[in-house]
Amino acid sequence: MPTKAELAAFLAAEFPQTKVMVEAVGDGGARVRHAIGFDELRPGGSVSGPVLMAVADVGLYVALCGELGLTVDVATTNLNTNFLRMPAGDRDIIGECRLLKVGRTLIVGEVSLFSEGDDRPVAHVVGTY
Amino acid sequence: MPTKAELAAFLAAEFPQTKVMVEAVGDGGARVRHAIGFDELRPGGSVSGPVLMAVADVGLYVALCGELGLTVDVATTNLNTNFLRMPAGDRDIIGECRLLKVGRTLIVGEVSLFSEGDDRPVAHVVGTY
Amino acid sequence: MPTKAELAAFLAAEFPQTKVMVEAVGDGGARVRHAIGFDELRPGGSVSGPVLMAVADVGLYVALCGELGLTVDVATTNLNTNFLRMPAGDRDIIGECRLLKVGRTLIVGEVSLFSEGDDRPVAHVVGTY
Amino acid sequence: MPTKAELAAFLAAEFPQTKVMVEAVGDGGARVRHAIGFDELRPGGSVSGPVLMAVADVGLYVALCGELGLTVDVATTNLNTNFLRMPAGDRDIIGECRLLKVGRTLIVGEVSLFSEGDDRPVAHVVGTY
Repeated sequence: MPTKAELAAFLAAEFPQTKVMVEAVGDGGARVRHAIGFDELRPGGSVSGPVLMAVADVGLYVALCGELGLTVDVATTNLNTNFLRMPAGDRDIIGECRLLKVGRTLIVGEVSLFSEGDDRPVAHVVGTY
Repeated sequence: MPTKAELAAFLAAEFPQTKVMVEAVGDGGARVRHAIGFDELRPGGSVSGPVLMAVADVGLYVALCGELGLTVDVATTNLNTNFLRMPAGDRDIIGECRLLKVGRTLIVGEVSLFSEGDDRPVAHVVGTY
Repeated sequence: MPTKAELAAFLAAEFPQTKVMVEAVGDGGARVRHAIGFDELRPGGSVSGPVLMAVADVGLYVALCGELGLTVDVATTNLNTNFLRMPAGDRDIIGECRLLKVGRTLIVGEVSLFSEGDDRPVAHVVGTY
Repeated sequence: MPTKAELAAFLAAEFPQTKVMVEAVGDGGARVRHAIGFDELRPGGSVSGPVLMAVADVGLYVALCGELGLTVDVATTNLNTNFLRMPAGDRDIIGECRLLKVGRTLIVGEVSLFSEGDDRPVAHVVGTY
């Protein structure tokens, strides 16, 4: 299975648009990070919802590549997000990703998202592939 | 209630990060548009999921302001997205938004997303506020 | 494709536990009905959530059989429900079901649920198969 | 806060329609159980989806009463279910419930559902109140 460095290089090559960084991968999960600046903010100075959803989506994809190998041949079919608390506008977003099922035709995982340094989740995401 | 022009000006002032454009608003709904370029693409040359979710989220917000007036005092609590077809990488994304309920403590709406010129939806989103 | 009567007979034979009745099927959709009595109520005298979700789940299955023929070889993978208003405890629940996509590996549909005689939806469901 | 016995008595009095039994409650969570017989089955001999959703919905309500006290004054607004594996038709369903956020206007929790004796989840549910 790919190492963290291999996965980071793969992501940079295949998906240069994403700012998500791989922190850890393996054991059916992954931890990813997204820096927060002006572009990521929404009215009120908090992090915009689509940024949180992007971190979750890419994070689950990273976890999945950690199980199945480097692949571009998967597509998200459903993503359900619950927004729990306002994220801080001046802290990185961390995504803790865990696969719930890796089947032949169905993959399901969940992500808890945090503002760095605060252990109360700002959002919770479940995605299917 | 705000006109389309007032809403577009409000959005530009309060949420300069968004590229979503207001096309129509009123009657418990809205139509919005997002141009697609390199930044919006994902591996395979299609539009990335977070872009679709952003169009839906902002579109529902616009529909909501069309009912309640210009406000920043609402927050998305749940967003559920089903990805139905690969969007074209060279066409604008159009979001057709419709409010299902506008209550005192709960607002719910749905969005059908299209690649311009194709009437089969690329994604369907339900959001609560 | 099966008629309404064929579908009702099929449902009664294969799924005797369900109280859902087929009212109409075809054109990528279906209308179903569920009588409401003591067993279907929840605290407060309203209809319990799982009854609403059952109407939606069976209704989408009926709509799907209307497109694909009588089959037991499909399984729900995701069901997302938004509860919009308290249903009346003394009126049938009606489900208006519409398929959004019928693909080889992904089928998605939505259901609006009503208390009979009131045109404001009590719940909205999106399901994938 | 209510004990397990108080919660079980409250549930029996307020919600006699439910077959869900309280096994444990406290620490922001709950464990509940539902016996499975003919009434709970679906075509193929597995447990029907609405039964799984009912276990999750009642389980989250129990967890919530464990935090807030015995109350009937909450309503589910969103329930998102991912069906992961076919449950066995001859084993009880166990729901492990955990609250993610208990706020003034928003409560969110998740439930992992199991067939007794198998530690791979058959479904995963996220609910908001």
